[in-house]
Amino acid sequence: MTIGQEYAIEEQPMLNELKQQVLEANLALPRHNLVTFTWGNVSGVDRQSGLMVIKPSGVEYPAMTLNDMVVVELESGKVVEGSKKPSSDTDTHRALYLDFASIGGIVHTHSRHATIWAQAGLDIPAWGTTHADYFYGDIPCTRLMYDDEIDGRYEWETGRVIIETFNQRQLDAAAVPAVLVHSHGPFAWGKDADTAVHNAVVLEEIAYMGIFSRQLVPGLPQMQQILLDKHYLRKHGKNAYYGQ
Amino acid sequence: MTIGQEYAIEEQPMLNELKQQVLEANLALPRHNLVTFTWGNVSGVDRQSGLMVIKPSGVEYPAMTLNDMVVVELESGKVVEGSKKPSSDTDTHRALYLDFASIGGIVHTHSRHATIWAQAGLDIPAWGTTHADYFYGDIPCTRLMYDDEIDGRYEWETGRVIIETFNQRQLDAAAVPAVLVHSHGPFAWGKDADTAVHNAVVLEEIAYMGIFSRQLVPGLPQMQQILLDKHYLRKHGKNAYYGQ
Amino acid sequence: MTIGQEYAIEEQPMLNELKQQVLEANLALPRHNLVTFTWGNVSGVDRQSGLMVIKPSGVEYPAMTLNDMVVVELESGKVVEGSKKPSSDTDTHRALYLDFASIGGIVHTHSRHATIWAQAGLDIPAWGTTHADYFYGDIPCTRLMYDDEIDGRYEWETGRVIIETFNQRQLDAAAVPAVLVHSHGPFAWGKDADTAVHNAVVLEEIAYMGIFSRQLVPGLPQMQQILLDKHYLRKHGKNAYYGQ
Amino acid sequence: MTIGQEYAIEEQPMLNELKQQVLEANLALPRHNLVTFTWGNVSGVDRQSGLMVIKPSGVEYPAMTLNDMVVVELESGKVVEGSKKPSSDTDTHRALYLDFASIGGIVHTHSRHATIWAQAGLDIPAWGTTHADYFYGDIPCTRLMYDDEIDGRYEWETGRVIIETFNQRQLDAAAVPAVLVHSHGPFAWGKDADTAVHNAVVLEEIAYMGIFSRQLVPGLPQMQQILLDKHYLRKHGKNAYYGQ
Repeated sequence: MTIGQEYAIEEQPMLNELKQQVLEANLALPRHNLVTFTWGNVSGVDRQSGLMVIKPSGVEYPAMTLNDMVVVELESGKVVEGSKKPSSDTDTHRALYLDFASIGGIVHTHSRHATIWAQAGLDIPAWGTTHADYFYGDIPCTRLMYDDEIDGRYEWETGRVIIETFNQRQLDAAAVPAVLVHSHGPFAWGKDADTAVHNAVVLEEIAYMGIFSRQLVPGLPQMQQILLDKHYLRKHGKNAYYGQ
Repeated sequence: MTIGQEYAIEEQPMLNELKQQVLEANLALPRHNLVTFTWGNVSGVDRQSGLMVIKPSGVEYPAMTLNDMVVVELESGKVVEGSKKPSSDTDTHRALYLDFASIGGIVHTHSRHATIWAQAGLDIPAWGTTHADYFYGDIPCTRLMYDDEIDGRYEWETGRVIIETFNQRQLDAAAVPAVLVHSHGPFAWGKDADTAVHNAVVLEEIAYMGIFSRQLVPGLPQMQQILLDKHYLRKHGKNAYYGQ
Repeated sequence: MTIGQEYAIEEQPMLNELKQQVLEANLALPRHNLVTFTWGNVSGVDRQSGLMVIKPSGVEYPAMTLNDMVVVELESGKVVEGSKKPSSDTDTHRALYLDFASIGGIVHTHSRHATIWAQAGLDIPAWGTTHADYFYGDIPCTRLMYDDEIDGRYEWETGRVIIETFNQRQLDAAAVPAVLVHSHGPFAWGKDADTAVHNAVVLEEIAYMGIFSRQLVPGLPQMQQILLDKHYLRKHGKNAYYGQ
Repeated sequence: MTIGQEYAIEEQPMLNELKQQVLEANLALPRHNLVTFTWGNVSGVDRQSGLMVIKPSGVEYPAMTLNDMVVVELESGKVVEGSKKPSSDTDTHRALYLDFASIGGIVHTHSRHATIWAQAGLDIPAWGTTHADYFYGDIPCTRLMYDDEIDGRYEWETGRVIIETFNQRQLDAAAVPAVLVHSHGPFAWGKDADTAVHNAVVLEEIAYMGIFSRQLVPGLPQMQQILLDKHYLRKHGKNAYYGQ
């Protein structure tokens, strides 16, 4: 890898492999039609160093390069490398990494159909095997935020409300790798940035299908629990048999 | 055809023409916007040898080659050629080939609008000539599967439930070349892999139109039987006069 | 124009300019996302000779050439040039040309949203200026066809039912250049093949918007007649002031 | 810039930089899927000279060049440069520039989903942070126009009705940079032509999401005012902290 070699004598750029992953995951967003303009951001974390790499704020995708990625300390939120401001949603990412120990990448978008459910303030029910192949149960929608949360450390509190939702419903972030933030939009995550984007794509797909399944049958019941188990466990866990 | 010539002395690869058809039919799925990621699979059958060729499990479309295709014995389900695992839905394909003697290719997708009907657990009614040109009556949706079917040989039982549906409704698989599997998604078929994909495209089209025809007129009655007959028979059967 | 020069000594191919227009109009259909596979057909008429040029039946768009176009006598329906069978909808085109003296081109598609209204058996009401800029009033949907019409000269009778609809409602085909055939799909027309396709695109656009305008406000009243007049007459008739 | 140098001796073409901006903004419309055919138009204003530059009427986007742009005097509506007729909506643009002192660019489209709301005659409520990031409150829909307005100086009156809407609701055009014209379609604006198009894209996005948020929850209440404030002010005004 030759990127950044010009700095090699003075200072070795940090986390280049992770930056590359995060850059590529960000660039995948417009390719999957998940974002408009500069909306959306992906981050990845390096658990050993306690650092995360995140997209800069308000930079257009076609122009984004490795050197635009911003390195942020998880605990403090301090920018430790990068000349640009990190995404305005950085503190939400930090809160999630600090609490969800199993995740390695996070993506936030305003993808159309997931956002529609978020605006409606509704969970996306598990209505089919497409859902069950990736999410072990409903995609939860958070509660409305309190005034002091919005007026206070808003982005951090957004992360805290997501965590509260998972705690109160006793959900495992590894098994339900996405959430809808009420009146806002989706966050998805995964073992790394690429998997997070993958899950965001699936989320958008099931969000779309859910709107119209519900139109066909208002009050549609959840899918059978045993079928949800079957499909989720066919692809995840120790007895998985999907893929090579 | 030069593919596989390197093996020509030791062992002649099997069913190369069929593999090519199945590969092309699989590659047609993303081109017709019927699949996301590695979802979906197409197979083709060689009735003489009792072998089917099917897409490998979890391989990405852009990277797929002829040599990735897997050859499976219809009766036993045994892989007789190929270094990759066959699609996890292989046993559903096998069950259908064994029972539907007239079909030569099968496709399974999670195409959005057909899947919406499957999630809703509803048949797609015959509401227009687009439907009648390809499907001689409603596209049936299977019943919910029983627990022991899901916990047992799930993929095989999925095929069996499709067959049960066609038997109970006295449907001819050649005249209604598609089904919706409840809470899951569509299977379509045809005389070969290419025709199966063709039918899957039409199915998606009528699934889309059906959702909104029904929105405009809840309780919309079926199209006239005589018009269904006219259009289906204009393109199929001994008095067909469509095409060259 | 050099096409067909090889035949120049023996026999001069007919209506080459019209064929070129009709070919281009046909090729515009997939570009405007109005057709799937070989669905859809465009024709153009030469009033002086009483001949029309139409797409062949069941030929794929990418492979279509000028020489595939079929020349048909309006009055008799006889193919007077072309080695391929004309579109199966040829007799519908003939009926319309024979009755609607002002039109020079016709297009038939199964474009998704116009077809949705046709399947629902509903007129598309004039709900906005997009509609009014092109269509002077609702797009009518024909009645269900009688059994003897379907079992008889079906394609011809389809044209006759369209004409009956315009007569009964006292509509001018030049001012309302489209119709929905019940349980089937749209026909659009215009002064030539290109304009017919143009109108088919607009029809699809207003069909889409109408579905969701009606969803937002069930029972939505028609737009103001005076606004319909204003927009239609701003672009059509002797006092038009739109365009160069 | 060499465009127009051929005229350099006789007469220096006017406002070339603004023309370039307006041309590019017009060409962005089809790229963002906001227009069909020649529908839609963008203008930009030069406040110092009291001149605006606008797209010509009925010219196709692929063929449009800098020299097609038309220069119009704001006060009089007189064309002061350009060989083509200006957009038929020119007087609406003029009215808005004359009244909304803060704006520098205007765009009019018939983009599908914003037009759906306009046809339904409904405001687009603020239902999420996507909306709040750009629009400080609902997108208003104008009242039906009176007969004498439609029969009189129609395009000018269209602008006047927009202004009346903003006055009666005490809206600031800078904070709510879009409107829906009843039974017609959207206008959006901004500090320049590019920003106007940007806002038109966002408007279309929230119009889409609003239709289906409302489908999921009929009677969906507005988003929290405090959250609307938070997001709007995070990107706008003196304490903004979004972007670089």
